[in-house]
Amino acid sequence: MQAKTPSDSITILTDMVLPGETNPLNNLFGGELLARMDRAASIAARRHSRRICVTASVNNVAFNKSIPLGSVVTIEAKVSRTFRTSLEIFIDVWIEDRESGEKIKANEAIYTFVAVDETGRPVEVPVIIPETELEKSRYDAALRRKQLSLVLAGKLAPSEATELKALFI
Amino acid sequence: MQAKTPSDSITILTDMVLPGETNPLNNLFGGELLARMDRAASIAARRHSRRICVTASVNNVAFNKSIPLGSVVTIEAKVSRTFRTSLEIFIDVWIEDRESGEKIKANEAIYTFVAVDETGRPVEVPVIIPETELEKSRYDAALRRKQLSLVLAGKLAPSEATELKALFI
Amino acid sequence: MQAKTPSDSITILTDMVLPGETNPLNNLFGGELLARMDRAASIAARRHSRRICVTASVNNVAFNKSIPLGSVVTIEAKVSRTFRTSLEIFIDVWIEDRESGEKIKANEAIYTFVAVDETGRPVEVPVIIPETELEKSRYDAALRRKQLSLVLAGKLAPSEATELKALFI
Amino acid sequence: MQAKTPSDSITILTDMVLPGETNPLNNLFGGELLARMDRAASIAARRHSRRICVTASVNNVAFNKSIPLGSVVTIEAKVSRTFRTSLEIFIDVWIEDRESGEKIKANEAIYTFVAVDETGRPVEVPVIIPETELEKSRYDAALRRKQLSLVLAGKLAPSEATELKALFI
Amino acid sequence: MQAKTPSDSITILTDMVLPGETNPLNNLFGGELLARMDRAASIAARRHSRRICVTASVNNVAFNKSIPLGSVVTIEAKVSRTFRTSLEIFIDVWIEDRESGEKIKANEAIYTFVAVDETGRPVEVPVIIPETELEKSRYDAALRRKQLSLVLAGKLAPSEATELKALFI
Amino acid sequence: MQAKTPSDSITILTDMVLPGETNPLNNLFGGELLARMDRAASIAARRHSRRICVTASVNNVAFNKSIPLGSVVTIEAKVSRTFRTSLEIFIDVWIEDRESGEKIKANEAIYTFVAVDETGRPVEVPVIIPETELEKSRYDAALRRKQLSLVLAGKLAPSEATELKALFI
Repeated sequence: MQAKTPSDSITILTDMVLPGETNPLNNLFGGELLARMDRAASIAARRHSRRICVTASVNNVAFNKSIPLGSVVTIEAKVSRTFRTSLEIFIDVWIEDRESGEKIKANEAIYTFVAVDETGRPVEVPVIIPETELEKSRYDAALRRKQLSLVLAGKLAPSEATELKALFI
Repeated sequence: MQAKTPSDSITILTDMVLPGETNPLNNLFGGELLARMDRAASIAARRHSRRICVTASVNNVAFNKSIPLGSVVTIEAKVSRTFRTSLEIFIDVWIEDRESGEKIKANEAIYTFVAVDETGRPVEVPVIIPETELEKSRYDAALRRKQLSLVLAGKLAPSEATELKALFI
Repeated sequence: MQAKTPSDSITILTDMVLPGETNPLNNLFGGELLARMDRAASIAARRHSRRICVTASVNNVAFNKSIPLGSVVTIEAKVSRTFRTSLEIFIDVWIEDRESGEKIKANEAIYTFVAVDETGRPVEVPVIIPETELEKSRYDAALRRKQLSLVLAGKLAPSEATELKALFI
Repeated sequence: MQAKTPSDSITILTDMVLPGETNPLNNLFGGELLARMDRAASIAARRHSRRICVTASVNNVAFNKSIPLGSVVTIEAKVSRTFRTSLEIFIDVWIEDRESGEKIKANEAIYTFVAVDETGRPVEVPVIIPETELEKSRYDAALRRKQLSLVLAGKLAPSEATELKALFI
Repeated sequence: MQAKTPSDSITILTDMVLPGETNPLNNLFGGELLARMDRAASIAARRHSRRICVTASVNNVAFNKSIPLGSVVTIEAKVSRTFRTSLEIFIDVWIEDRESGEKIKANEAIYTFVAVDETGRPVEVPVIIPETELEKSRYDAALRRKQLSLVLAGKLAPSEATELKALFI
Repeated sequence: MQAKTPSDSITILTDMVLPGETNPLNNLFGGELLARMDRAASIAARRHSRRICVTASVNNVAFNKSIPLGSVVTIEAKVSRTFRTSLEIFIDVWIEDRESGEKIKANEAIYTFVAVDETGRPVEVPVIIPETELEKSRYDAALRRKQLSLVLAGKLAPSEATELKALFI
């Protein structure tokens, strides 16, 4: 399988916030944003792997800014790192001001997908080669996140989580 | 108001076809595609005008290819021509093959929006300057479409629809 | 196949506008209306043809009047003309005032469907015989619309679009 | 207030059964049908009263026949009897066979609505005068149903439920 | 089949009222509540019978209290009585005050389900043994309701509806 | 403010997986599960705080088991730890086998909410006192998770993340 770059999988989902998708404060309901990010991320995972990809975990979703009714929301998802059969997807969410057109970063999220065949069995995915500085820094951090989730799940001894350990000592 | 180009308003809405959005033949339900195109087109209209934009008419939607369940659908909307207070939006729809990644054109559509203020009254929009060959040809055709809709609505005498008339004589 | 009349296919879909179906101005969202009209029209097409019918094109949707939250909306769809394997459906949309009960025409639309068999292949449909004056005038106009869409698609030389040409010379 | 007839309030909601509205047996999900009938019935109540009407109770919904995916479903709602501030709505549901066009009765339901003003306080509604035999028989039965629901709620002594009592002695 | 108790089938569905689920008075739309109750009740029926269960009828739904936007709604469904192949489900609906946490009873409903096999044919269900006073009183009333619906459907002579008749003489 | 226990906020959302909520493999769509968990978690946060609570972050969602169409899914959310104005919610997801009634753990997730007043400003919440062994272990782990997210966000020096650091040295 040929290596790919993050820009090969870039997926853009621009949509509005309609009244049926808001919470009692008239902002985009958190669950609706989680669902939209999941759809965009699963397309990015599929574009990289050319496989069916299913959500394996959601790790870091930070809702920094509420998104008011009527906003235009742009979700951009890109593969940030691949492991043997799984892919980490980094998602950036912007809203834009209708009058000035200025774009503001509203949220970030990291989802992990597993590529599977038609029977649901994990299959290998192409490796990824980050290009920009941001892509490289997200690629490096992905390994620490992976170790972290293994440590938290009790599947890796903290002493063996080399990259992660280096942060603390 | 400063003139803009079609690429200033480009809006991309990439999404999947889930089971709840299909018709009895297991293809994307026509009404659902019409609704998605309306959302993408209204964002493109807003990006050009920096105004609230409401759908005025839908003119040429050709469903050339059915879109099967599970497809990745990319809707791309751009302003093709502006009139005083209205904007014609040209929409291209592609589906991509999961295995090869090949993109196939599935549909085209033309929607017209009117820019309004908070009270719903029409307001002027910036003019548009097409750049590519395709943008120029769509810009020219938009005038014929405009005349045509005026003729069909009985608001313009066929004899005065100069550009349109030229097609037939 | 026995000929039918437009009233054989009449389809009425009366429904309300709930908060989850509105746009930021608190009117029925354009995309939602397009979807409802598509459902009503596809039923009318099926009632005429007794076949599965898929949306082929949407040609003239005029959103003349916005439809506020809480309105009662009546969509009435009827076959206006048939061609060999396709059917033109004319759709009228009314809203009614809750207090006076008065009905106001809000929109019109024209959708075209193709009748298909279980494998998706086009099949012939019964001819239609218009009865009322309005049905006859819509039946006649349908041919001009058909020619027009063929001309615009480059499938018919303008010089051969007899009925259409007659409008301009 | 002027008396009205059941046909003054007749409301027809014809729609399809799409995949997103089915249960695990591939039939229309019961809850979805209850919601559609509620919408049709509330429009009928509003057409009779020219008031906002809210659902007060649902009394006799019989799901006699399952409604398969892809069906065309016609819901017909009419006021069957009025009391001082409430209205009983009788709902008939048909499905039609795509090939033969034959209509089969699938369900019946009875909903009760209360007419309210903008503050939610009950207001009087016009009386109703049944015309056809079926309308008259439903009008008479409505009183027994009303008494029955009062008896079951402990708000009417069985001995005073004259019409109902007559059934049993 | 082993007998069961009502608490074996208890099903709790706690959820919020979002803007997309409200009526024009900003309360939970009646049809949406009917649909949620149907889902909870069908799970209770399944938990008792370990079978697919389909809605057979809806008998007594009293909407005593409107449920405002933003409320937390708790639906509790339990089997109240079984017959040979059918189950009566009693549903209680509460809303709770956000500030005090106080729970208020908002609605009650009774749904009947039939247990079926994969081909849709009715199958026997385990008998139920009520335990609490409330369960016993609902169990007893269920027989009167059953007789009543048979009488109203013309399937039982009023003179033979022993339990029901006893109410009136 | 009086201290509370995790069981004071327990929230149960039992529901089915209908066809409109599935992915192309006929399992519950990941985004739909994320949205349901968000709704249950926000109710648990509100029950503890008696305040409006908005999603602040989603940290550990593990999709260990796919959830097939037709499943009964039980989501149970409880406050696991409070900080000054924020609450960590632990969510357990089970599916149950229709025939045996056996419950299987399908997923776990951790969401963080912030309690706000009507203007959206953070407000203090009552402290929590864990009771069971599981509650205590989740309470302790919550501090490490909090430190971790501060470290990853660059808001806490790793050397000061005492509890977390202890894992690695």
